[in-house]
Order: sequence, then C-alpha cells, then structure tokens
Amino acid sequence: MKKDVKKVVLAYSGGLDTSIILKWLGDTYGCEVVTFTADIGQNEDLKPVKEKALKLGIKEENIFTLDLREEFVRDYVFPMFRANTVYEGEYLLGTSIARPLIAKYLVDIAKKTKADAISHGATGKGNDQVRFELGAYALNPDIKVIAPWREWDLNSREKLLAYAGKHNIEIQQKKGKSPYSMDANLLHISYEGLVLEDPAVAPESDMWRWTTDPKDAPNESEIIEIEYKNGDPISLNGKALKPHEMLDALNNLGAKHGIGRLDLVENRYVGMKSRGCYETPGGTIMLKAHRAMESLTLDREAAHLKDEIMPKYATFIYNGYWFSPERLMLQALIDESQKHVNGKVRLELYKGNVIVLGRKSETDSLFNAEFSTFEEDLVYDQKDAAGFIKLNALRFIIAGKNGRSM
Amino acid sequence: MKKDVKKVVLAYSGGLDTSIILKWLGDTYGCEVVTFTADIGQNEDLKPVKEKALKLGIKEENIFTLDLREEFVRDYVFPMFRANTVYEGEYLLGTSIARPLIAKYLVDIAKKTKADAISHGATGKGNDQVRFELGAYALNPDIKVIAPWREWDLNSREKLLAYAGKHNIEIQQKKGKSPYSMDANLLHISYEGLVLEDPAVAPESDMWRWTTDPKDAPNESEIIEIEYKNGDPISLNGKALKPHEMLDALNNLGAKHGIGRLDLVENRYVGMKSRGCYETPGGTIMLKAHRAMESLTLDREAAHLKDEIMPKYATFIYNGYWFSPERLMLQALIDESQKHVNGKVRLELYKGNVIVLGRKSETDSLFNAEFSTFEEDLVYDQKDAAGFIKLNALRFIIAGKNGRSM
Amino acid sequence: MKKDVKKVVLAYSGGLDTSIILKWLGDTYGCEVVTFTADIGQNEDLKPVKEKALKLGIKEENIFTLDLREEFVRDYVFPMFRANTVYEGEYLLGTSIARPLIAKYLVDIAKKTKADAISHGATGKGNDQVRFELGAYALNPDIKVIAPWREWDLNSREKLLAYAGKHNIEIQQKKGKSPYSMDANLLHISYEGLVLEDPAVAPESDMWRWTTDPKDAPNESEIIEIEYKNGDPISLNGKALKPHEMLDALNNLGAKHGIGRLDLVENRYVGMKSRGCYETPGGTIMLKAHRAMESLTLDREAAHLKDEIMPKYATFIYNGYWFSPERLMLQALIDESQKHVNGKVRLELYKGNVIVLGRKSETDSLFNAEFSTFEEDLVYDQKDAAGFIKLNALRFIIAGKNGRSM
Amino acid sequence: MKKDVKKVVLAYSGGLDTSIILKWLGDTYGCEVVTFTADIGQNEDLKPVKEKALKLGIKEENIFTLDLREEFVRDYVFPMFRANTVYEGEYLLGTSIARPLIAKYLVDIAKKTKADAISHGATGKGNDQVRFELGAYALNPDIKVIAPWREWDLNSREKLLAYAGKHNIEIQQKKGKSPYSMDANLLHISYEGLVLEDPAVAPESDMWRWTTDPKDAPNESEIIEIEYKNGDPISLNGKALKPHEMLDALNNLGAKHGIGRLDLVENRYVGMKSRGCYETPGGTIMLKAHRAMESLTLDREAAHLKDEIMPKYATFIYNGYWFSPERLMLQALIDESQKHVNGKVRLELYKGNVIVLGRKSETDSLFNAEFSTFEEDLVYDQKDAAGFIKLNALRFIIAGKNGRSM
Repeated sequence: MKKDVKKVVLAYSGGLDTSIILKWLGDTYGCEVVTFTADIGQNEDLKPVKEKALKLGIKEENIFTLDLREEFVRDYVFPMFRANTVYEGEYLLGTSIARPLIAKYLVDIAKKTKADAISHGATGKGNDQVRFELGAYALNPDIKVIAPWREWDLNSREKLLAYAGKHNIEIQQKKGKSPYSMDANLLHISYEGLVLEDPAVAPESDMWRWTTDPKDAPNESEIIEIEYKNGDPISLNGKALKPHEMLDALNNLGAKHGIGRLDLVENRYVGMKSRGCYETPGGTIMLKAHRAMESLTLDREAAHLKDEIMPKYATFIYNGYWFSPERLMLQALIDESQKHVNGKVRLELYKGNVIVLGRKSETDSLFNAEFSTFEEDLVYDQKDAAGFIKLNALRFIIAGKNGRSM
Repeated sequence: MKKDVKKVVLAYSGGLDTSIILKWLGDTYGCEVVTFTADIGQNEDLKPVKEKALKLGIKEENIFTLDLREEFVRDYVFPMFRANTVYEGEYLLGTSIARPLIAKYLVDIAKKTKADAISHGATGKGNDQVRFELGAYALNPDIKVIAPWREWDLNSREKLLAYAGKHNIEIQQKKGKSPYSMDANLLHISYEGLVLEDPAVAPESDMWRWTTDPKDAPNESEIIEIEYKNGDPISLNGKALKPHEMLDALNNLGAKHGIGRLDLVENRYVGMKSRGCYETPGGTIMLKAHRAMESLTLDREAAHLKDEIMPKYATFIYNGYWFSPERLMLQALIDESQKHVNGKVRLELYKGNVIVLGRKSETDSLFNAEFSTFEEDLVYDQKDAAGFIKLNALRFIIAGKNGRSM
Repeated sequence: MKKDVKKVVLAYSGGLDTSIILKWLGDTYGCEVVTFTADIGQNEDLKPVKEKALKLGIKEENIFTLDLREEFVRDYVFPMFRANTVYEGEYLLGTSIARPLIAKYLVDIAKKTKADAISHGATGKGNDQVRFELGAYALNPDIKVIAPWREWDLNSREKLLAYAGKHNIEIQQKKGKSPYSMDANLLHISYEGLVLEDPAVAPESDMWRWTTDPKDAPNESEIIEIEYKNGDPISLNGKALKPHEMLDALNNLGAKHGIGRLDLVENRYVGMKSRGCYETPGGTIMLKAHRAMESLTLDREAAHLKDEIMPKYATFIYNGYWFSPERLMLQALIDESQKHVNGKVRLELYKGNVIVLGRKSETDSLFNAEFSTFEEDLVYDQKDAAGFIKLNALRFIIAGKNGRSM
Repeated sequence: MKKDVKKVVLAYSGGLDTSIILKWLGDTYGCEVVTFTADIGQNEDLKPVKEKALKLGIKEENIFTLDLREEFVRDYVFPMFRANTVYEGEYLLGTSIARPLIAKYLVDIAKKTKADAISHGATGKGNDQVRFELGAYALNPDIKVIAPWREWDLNSREKLLAYAGKHNIEIQQKKGKSPYSMDANLLHISYEGLVLEDPAVAPESDMWRWTTDPKDAPNESEIIEIEYKNGDPISLNGKALKPHEMLDALNNLGAKHGIGRLDLVENRYVGMKSRGCYETPGGTIMLKAHRAMESLTLDREAAHLKDEIMPKYATFIYNGYWFSPERLMLQALIDESQKHVNGKVRLELYKGNVIVLGRKSETDSLFNAEFSTFEEDLVYDQKDAAGFIKLNALRFIIAGKNGRSM
C-alpha cells in the first residue's frame, strides 16, 4: 500500500529520530535518500551531521548542508516582525516561521535532484507536519510526502531504540543533551514534554538553555540603540549589521539580561492544547523596539489596521500558511505601511525587562510637541474639538431624542 | 453668545483648575453650580475637597462626593480586562475606562438636581473631553456641555493664576505635588508634559509616584495565586476579595515588585500623537493572569475571535464610546466567551516581571496531556492528520496543477 | 477493521441512496438501524418514507419522522438572517443552515434510542459530511460516525444499482424526479451536477423546479408589507405568521415573481470549487427587507460592525460550525443589535426584482428629516462640521507639514 | 474674522449655487477666483460653463475645464470595483469615489495657479464637504478651505435668489432640470430631497433620469460577454475598450434594461441617516461580473479575506479617506489578489436582472470538475475527509469529554 517513491529528500537533523527515518525510508520504500540539513542558527556544527549521513550510507552528492541564516532572518523573520506578530497574545512564532523555509528547500532540492518525494521527522500530533507539508504542496503540487511518524509502528521509545540497534544507528546522544523535546533556531528555542505536560507545574530552572535566569542576570542594566529602515532593524549601537548578525547580536544581549522567557499553553492547529516554554531573547527586544519605532512614525489608522489584522496574520503563520495567497495579501498590506518606519529606538535591558527610553526619527516622525501641548498653536484650534465631538455624538443624540435609551 | 444654562454639574477635583472653573462657570453663565467628586481610587481624601467647594460658595446640598471604587472596578475595569484589552499594543486604558463612569454620574446628578448642563476640566486637545461628552450625550441627548478650556481665554498659566488671585481661589498646591500632568485612579497613574514632550528623552526616575523602580524592587520574588470565575478574578491567595479590593491588593503587589511601568507614544482620537508614561501595577498582573487562565479554558477559535476584535474594542474605549451600541455588541460577544474561564493561575512577581508558573481548572480545563503527548491515545489517530493536511492543501494543489505558481 | 457499532441512527430520506445505506449499515456493521426523517419543508410526504423504512426491515419503534419546520425557521433560519448572511457575496446558505438541525436530532435520537452511532448519506467530497459530523461531535463527543460514501466501494452508479438489486431495494425513482443532485428545504432548493459541471455553461431552463422564470413571471408587480420585531419578520400584509408560515408565504410570493435564482461557483470547505444553482425565493425577499428595516433603525456603527463580522459568521455556518463557541459569540453580538430592529417594510415584487418602496418604524426610527435637510435645525450646527473635518484631517496635516507626502 | 485668502480655486459646476459662491467668494474674501470644472461623465457640455464663468468676471486663464473621464474610471472606479465594494450592503459609492479626484485637481490647480485656498459648494450637513476637504488636506496640509455653506447666512432658497438677483447671476434653470438634489457622473446619478425625505414614501417614477423602468425595459433579454484582466474589465463582446468607454458602454446596456436602481437609507459620516435614490447601471453589471470572474479564479481564502476587509474599505471611501495610509494599505492587499482574475464572464440582462450565464478562464481557472465530481479522481482521496473532519472536530470532542456542553 506504500506510495511508489523513487527518491526522497529528507529534512535531516543528524539526531536519532531522523537517522532512524533515514534508514526506514530506504527499507520501506526502497528509494534513494537525499538528506538536507540547514543551518538556521540552531547552533550545531553541520560537519558531523554530514559525516553521520555518509556513515548511514547516503551518497555524498545526495547530502545537502546549507547555511540559511541570512535568508531565514531577512525573508522570514524580519517580514514577520514588521507586523508585531504574536500568536495568542504571547508566542513569537519561533518554530512556525522556520518551517516554510525548510519546506522551500526540500522542494528546491527535490527539483534539483529529481526526487519525487520529501520526508520529515515531525510527529502526527504537532503543527510542524502541517507547516512542512502545506509549504511543500504550495510550492510543488505533485510532490509526494512521507511522514514516517504517521505511517510506521515505531510508536514508542523502545521500538525506536530496537530499530536503531537492528540497523546499526548510533543511539548515543550528545552529552548534556536536554531531555525535553526541543526546537532551536536563530529566533528561539522551544521546550515541550516531561513536567511541562502538566500546565499547573512550573518548568525546572535547568530546563532553560539559552537565557540567563532574570534573577542571575547582571545588576547593571545595559542601554542599546537600534536603527530601523522601512520597518527592519539595520544597525545596533551605530554599527550596521546584516539581518542574521542583528538577530544574533540581540540574542546575545537578551540572553545576558534574562530576556524572552515564556511559558505558554497554546492551541495547536491540529485541535488540542499543548504547553510549551520558549526563549526568544532577540525577538523579544525586536518586538518592543519595532512597536516603539512605529509609535513615532506610523499613522494612527495604519497602526490600528495593522493591529486588527495581526492576529489573523499570526494564525496564518502558526498554521503553516506562509506560502499562501492570503499571507501574501496581508504582507502586501503590512509592507505598504513600513516605508515610513525609519529612525532610532533607545532601550534599556535589565533582568528580563526591555524598557523603552526614547525614540526619534529625523525623517519620519509624526510627533510634534507643539500640537500636543496645552499651549496654543497655529494648527489646532481647540474650538474645532467641539464640532468634532458634537458630530461624533450626533447619532447618540438623535437616538436619545427619538426615545431610545442606551 | 453663551448657552442659556441654569444649573451645571461640574466634575470637581478640588484642584486649582477645577476651582477656577467652578468660579468661572458662575461668573460666565450666571448659573448655579453643583460639584461632583468621585473616589475612584485616586488616593485623595474627599473631605477637604468638599470643604473647598463650600468655601468657594457651593451650597452644601449641591456638593456630591461619592465612593465609586467598587462600581468602577466591577462594571468598567473587569469587563474590559475580560477582553485582554490593550490599546496600540501596550496601553492598558487606565484613564479611558474611568471617564464614562464620571460621565454617567454627571448625567445622573444633573437629573437628580434638575441641572441642565455638565462641565469638566479637560482641555481641548485631549481625549478626555471626548470621553466625557460622548458619554454624557449618549446618556442624555438634551444635556448641555460646558468645556471651559475650549471657551475661555485663560489659555496660559499666568492668566489662570491672575484669575485665581482675583477671585480668592487658593493657589497653593499640595506639598510634593507632581509637576507633571497626572491622572490617577485605582487602575493607573498617568504622566504627561515637561521632559516627556520630547519622545527621545527618558522620563526622570523621580517622576514615577507609585511603583518601585525595578532596580530597587525586592531581590526575593513573590508567588501569588489568583482565582478566576467567569473571567473575573475573585480571590487572591485563597482569600475572596471584592473587585476593588482585588485590584487594590494586586496594585500593592505590583508596585512593590516594580511591575507595570510603561512609556508610550500614543495616537489621540483628536488627531495628534502624544507621549505619556503609565503605571498600572495591578492591571499588568491581571492581564497576564487572565490570558493564562484563558489559555487553559478557552476554546481556540473563541480565543482567536477575541484577539481579532480586541483592537477594535480597545479603540472604542480609548475614543470614548463605552456607552455605544458597538461596545455593547462586542461586550456581549466577549462575555459569552467567559463562562468557562474558571480556575487558578499561579504567578511569580520579580523586579518588573510577571511570570506565569502554572494554571489549572478543576471544571473547565481543555488541556489533556493524553492528547498532546507523543504516545498513542484513544481519541487521536495520527493518520487523521494526513487527511487534515491533504484537504487543507487541496486548494494549493489544484492551483499548482492548473499551472499557477505561488 | 470496522468500528464496533451496536445501533446507528441514519438520516434517512427515503431515496435510493439512503435506502442502500440503510441496508449496507446492517450488513456491514451488523447493527440495528434507526431511521430519522425530518420535514424541513422539502415538500415531500413523510408517510411513504416511513412505509419504505418498514419495508426495508426497520422496526416501527426505530422509525422517527418529525415535522421540524417551525424549529428550523425559528431557531436556525431567522437567527442567520438577522446577520444579513451571505456566503461569498451571494449564497444564502440554504443547505448549510439545515444541516446542524439534522445533526442535533441525530444525536438526540441516538440518546433516546441508546444508539452509539449516527450515519448520513453525504459524500466524501462535499460540505455536508463536515456539517453533519462537526455538529454531531460538538453535541456528543462520544458518538461514532459512519459515513458510507467514504467507506464503501460502491463508488459508481452501476455498483449502487447492483447492490440495490441484490438487496431488493426499490430502484424506481419518482416520476419527474430531477436528474440533478438536489437539496431542498423551506429555505431553498440547490442543484449540482450534469451540465453545471462546466461553469461556462448556463443551466437549462427546465432545471429550475420552484421559481417561475422571470420572463414568465406576472407582468403585474405585487406590493407586500412585512413587519419586523427584534429583527425577525412577524407579519405579512398585516397578518401575523409563525416563522415557518412566514417563510412559506414569502416563498410562494417569490416563486411566483421569479425571485431568488442564483448560479454560483463557490469554494467548498474541503478545498475545491464547485458550481451550484440555487432557488431561495423567500430568503431573497427577507434579505432585502431586513436590510431595509435595519437601514432605518440600526445605529451606524452597529450596522458597520455587523457588516464586518458577517463574512466570518457566514463562513462558520457554511463550514459547519453552527454549534461552536465562535458562532455563539457572534450570535450574541448580532442579537444584541436587533432589539431596535422593529417596524415595517414595503416591497414591490416584479420579475426577479425585489424593490424597496418604503420603511417605517413608529418606535425605533433613527431617521429624522429635520437633521438631514438643508434647512437649519436645532440640533445640528453646520459650523460643527468644520471642526469635525479639521480634527479628522489633523493626522494628514501633521504628516504633510512634517514633509511626508501621500 | 475671515481667513486671509489671496486666490481660491472653486469647484465650479456652472449651476446657480456655485455661481453664487463664485461671486460671494470675491465679495467676501476680496480674492481672485479660479474655477475648475471637470467632465467626469455627468453628461453636461463644459463650454457653456466656461462662458458662464467668463460672464461672471473670471479671467480666461483662471478657468479650467478638464476631461477626467478616463482617469476617473481607471484610477478610482476600477480599483474600487476590484474589491466588490458596497457600502452598507447596497450603495455602490458613485458620489464618494468621484470626490477625491476633484479634491486632487483642486489642489493641483491651486499649485499651478499659486492659489492658497480651495472652495466647494457642498453643504454643512453632507458627506461631500468631508470628502473634498480630507482629500485636500491629505494632499496639501497648508491649503485653506472655504466652505461657503458653513460660513454664509444665505441659508434659504429665498436669500440665495435675492443674492443672485442683486449680483446679476442668471437664475433661470435649464428646462427640464430635476427638482431633486442630484449628483451625476459616469458611475451613477443620485437623488435626494423632496418626497424622498420620508423614507416610507416611494420615489415618483419620473424622478429617475437615466435607467428605463424595469417594467418598460425590453421584453427580450440581451447577452453580453466581459473580459477581465487583473481584475479590471478590458473588453466587451470581444471589443477592447478603455476604462471609461467600458463603463459608458455598460451604462448604456444597463440603462436600457432597467438595471441599477436603488432606494436607500444610509448613514452619513456626519452622524445622521439620509435617504437617497441611485442609478448605477454599468456599476451594477460590473459588480456582478467581477464577483463571477473571481468565483472561478480567486483562491478561497483570498476571496474570504477580501470579503472581510471590504466593509472597512467601503467605509474609508464613503467617509472621504481615499488619500490615506489605510486605504492604500487595503488597496495593496486587494491588488495583490487580482493578478489571477483573468477570463471572461457571460451575462444576461433582463428587466432589472443581471444573470450570470457562465464564466471561464483559459489561464487562471481554479475550477476542476474532476475534483468536485462524485466520481473517483486521482487527487482527492475521500478517506482524507474523515481525518479532516476529525481534527477539525477535535476541540469539540475534547471539550465534550472534559464535561463541557455546547
């Protein structure tokens, strides 16, 4: 009953699970396996991954390892942050935003290697399977998808280890490897499982791998300045940085000051709630900074329109619809608003807090103290306010006079 | 050209400005003046206010001082927090939510005292004039409104002081009075003016009157538990509290731990940007706690619908449309969603941080570790995910097969 | 691999397909079959349906035939029309709105008869399977669902007829039965299939079973008056009518005058486009009449808010989420707005046109010719408009003065 | 108290009112007057208008008459129709969409002639003053605006006529001039006033100036085909037409067949309801045709997103915010969606009805009969629907199992 597959591109991490999948694919489908491993800032050396793939029998020309950090931040993370995107009021979408990039490369490499299928190690209960597969189908409607976790019967740790043993797959984990189910990239680390499965229980303090505990963060705060151009951060403390360098630098600052920890119960697209903990140090700083930059430079109704569509935009990304007409439409709306989002924001970082100290824009400020002061000015006639209020109240006045009560 | 006014109810704070207005109303309109002063938690004794009114010639039966703290929190603050309301991503609407309550009592007292007009001390450039007056017109379409700041020529500090001197109005300010333009109630304190008029400049540290500087906050964190019923907090650390007691208690906790400071540039309804600083200690805790409670008990689509309509709801309140069909319609939607928001949230307060430690609900949890685990369960068949993805991708697949590229 | 089912309630129409299903259920699951047939205005006698069920071996106590017309219109159709609901700009949701009612009775009868499963005759490519099953799961999470079209291999007309022959199921169709795939109830008739499968081809004129062709409709127009209470029509030409009587009467009027034909390409929830033709004579009149009634009695922002949320509400119903928190939340919002929608609308019906002639409301009109006339009036000071415009333009003026061009 | 104005550009129609304004501006402000008259399809010869201006003493170089029909349809009407824009469910915005174009030329001509002010003949109670002035301020923040109807005391027909007599302004109206207050352009004619001021009373049949009464329209229907490119109509019955030629041709067809009459109570931006009647023959055809074209070529979620934002977009235009960041943002979203809206629609016109007969697209159809048929196909596995439904129902199932009832 298996699909007829000749060659499959596997999103390969080098870990135990995807190594097992690598073997299982060949065994089950009798197909050639191509591996694809991306550096998206997960802070792992790709060289041993390549060696592992070779050792598992993958041909050298079928092993793809790519540094996608710049593309990831420039074309995925930054566009998303232009919208001040948060899912369900809190989550900065660190995993969600990386998945379409992987999907895109799976499809691209499939095309290049003339593979007819792709495969991934996401389970059948999570969001990632959806994100990988929606992305892949959107980019190639004829692609076949193999999702081993939904197909095989290796549905327990024991069976997996047995399979690994049988196929000479190295099961020794890296020392110090977290017992939690983790996902990491330049934007965030996520944790799931173990004690987190009870949402009433707080995470253990040694679960967090990236950020300093706010209580252990420096007693001295640190002040930084970020410059924005068209809604994207372009320089930090006066130094121009490429997108991924910027995020990296902000991550270091945030991590040092205990910024960006989050403990959530979220609603998965597949229908159940799950509990996750997240570290997004640089992203948390960027969200605050971008909002501050917009507060000075964005027109009121532009800002409100962005706020109104944001939850929808976040849900599109969370659910895996990055490559979709509806996401592109919202992106067009968002990007149209960002041409004036230029200037600088000064922030103070202190034990988990990101505090806005000031914002300015030589070119695009819409703030004018003259207009907002109590004193008289030339543009604003206070008597205009009477007419403004009266006409805005008119529908209430008419309703009231016609005998309708609120 | 002045309106014909017989009796006017003035929102009277006892301060210099409204004392001058009090006199000016009588002089200008030749009308009887009724004063109304509410305790909405601004932490001022109303007795001296009453004495001052008497001294300025107001008849005793025309002086109304009312403790509205419970009504304020129960009927205004709590309904607003059910929606996780923030204006422009940050502002917790501490001033905005108090104005309709004042408007309501101005109109009520006007009815009781057979007054035909109301008056307030809000300037012609701010939002508060709009909020007072829209509220008043919505509740009584025939009410006349006198907004002295839009009418008189006392448009400088000097002229005001001269007027006060001429009319024997005490100009001595309370010792320690802030030089900033402030508004205070049980939900927040706001600051405007002076150095804040340059949005690039950080507020002086001695501006803040309520919360401890996070840097001076206790080195020991504090853990609290809030119980929710139908979306409202009802007990703190196991002790049942009335709405205003709850907010008061959370304010004390938040203030102690440096929680709830905010520095914003916001968009006023009257068309300009302004910069304000806010302290909302208890509100900041409530926002985090309520979201955590909802994350466990609210259906996904209910939560997303709330998130989508929230910016609109916040704008209605900010702009002064509390008493409006549209706000009541959104409130009906919000309240319908809250019947299941029951349970307890545990939080840690530490130097400006509000950290969720856990949430649980005996009666209404939608979390079920069984469903979200990687292990098999009885409800969720992982194979279902394949169909779910395939049908959600179908429109992409058809588009792609018909030759359309993303 | 079949689910273990003891007793199943089948939505039974008496037609060939559900008769085959009736047999197939017993044969395949070895379970007792309960039939449920509702009169929702499809204009078919239920007595022969009952007889047919008896003949197919169903026990008399297991045959349920219910007249649900009043409930259907009162609790489903009318609430939906309060929102001026149209899907994708055109479709009046005649099929969609009937499905949750059927789902509810399937679950209710399952409870009453201690059945553990339900079944229906909807195919695996359509929306109705989703609507039946989402409704059923929402009302009983433990119910089992059997969807024969997704399970069996009778996937062609030939196989079905062979199965019928083998099991002595009467295959003779009623005389004059339409060759199109149809759905009918008190709100509409729908047509699918045959020539309609090419969206470039117009339907044949003899496809339409209900409404007169506009070209053959009377040359004399007809004027009617509908009275509304709380957003629902309650009397026609002065005669009070129950909900289903009202819809029936409007159907007769609309059908006579060629009103309510529609030819659409629509987007199914399951991911493909389909082409359907619809007749909704009474509904088309109600939509026009309700909008006219609201135009006079509904506050502007209430009306706009309803218009903004309507597409979402329509999609919820189309997709099968009638029984969901999100639909109930929107219904609460909608119903809150309807308390003032009281009055009378006069309409002219003529060859496919529904023309509003007038609307009035003794109690709730917000129209006041005095205010909208060019003449002076007491409430509206034209000079107020200057202030209104100036403040609404202020953000543009500030932007322009700060050097930003549109 | 009058503003200091040197030169003013007046939107001049040649009618009595703007002729009086022309004189009044000179008399009141002692300023030079420039007249601007546009042909936007109102079907009036501009030559007599020019002569009249000359006769009233305007210098020849200060008289501007421009044919803006193509720009009007191409850059205003067509972009608006891409969104299927209707205000309050019915109104096609014929007046609203023309105003920003006039505002733009007033500002442009002011720049060219070094005028410091503009003026118009819109009253203080209507929407048009807002649309003219918001447009003007958005394009030139320093422009002065003179709105005579809000300033002068000629607030009755008698006073106007007296003023005209005193200043030798010809008061004789064209023969056959409508007694209603009308606005006309290539998109529509509107009527207000007289019997229409009672919304319960139907308009007199001789009020309508453009369209044939449906009852007098041809007994033979007419079939047409419109071709769309990127969401705009480009050819009619195989003949390529410029935008304004297209609208003109559709107007003739619509008018002949009694299409596009509308009788409405609408909500003005200035706060009151008003009653108007409209004729939009070509626009009514375009709305139906564009929806039909989209139904075949637009992705489902793109279509739904457009439907959700449309009411907002319509309100922006109705209220006068064509030149605003928020309208431009929505336009970017809308235009992004239109690249695939290519193909042909066939329509039948008959006595007020616009009936879709068919739609096809060689390049961009998303319809595929194979997928929507009941027969088996290669892409769609009916069993996938089970998983799709199950996961979409999962949140209900979990809620139900946890004891929550709908």
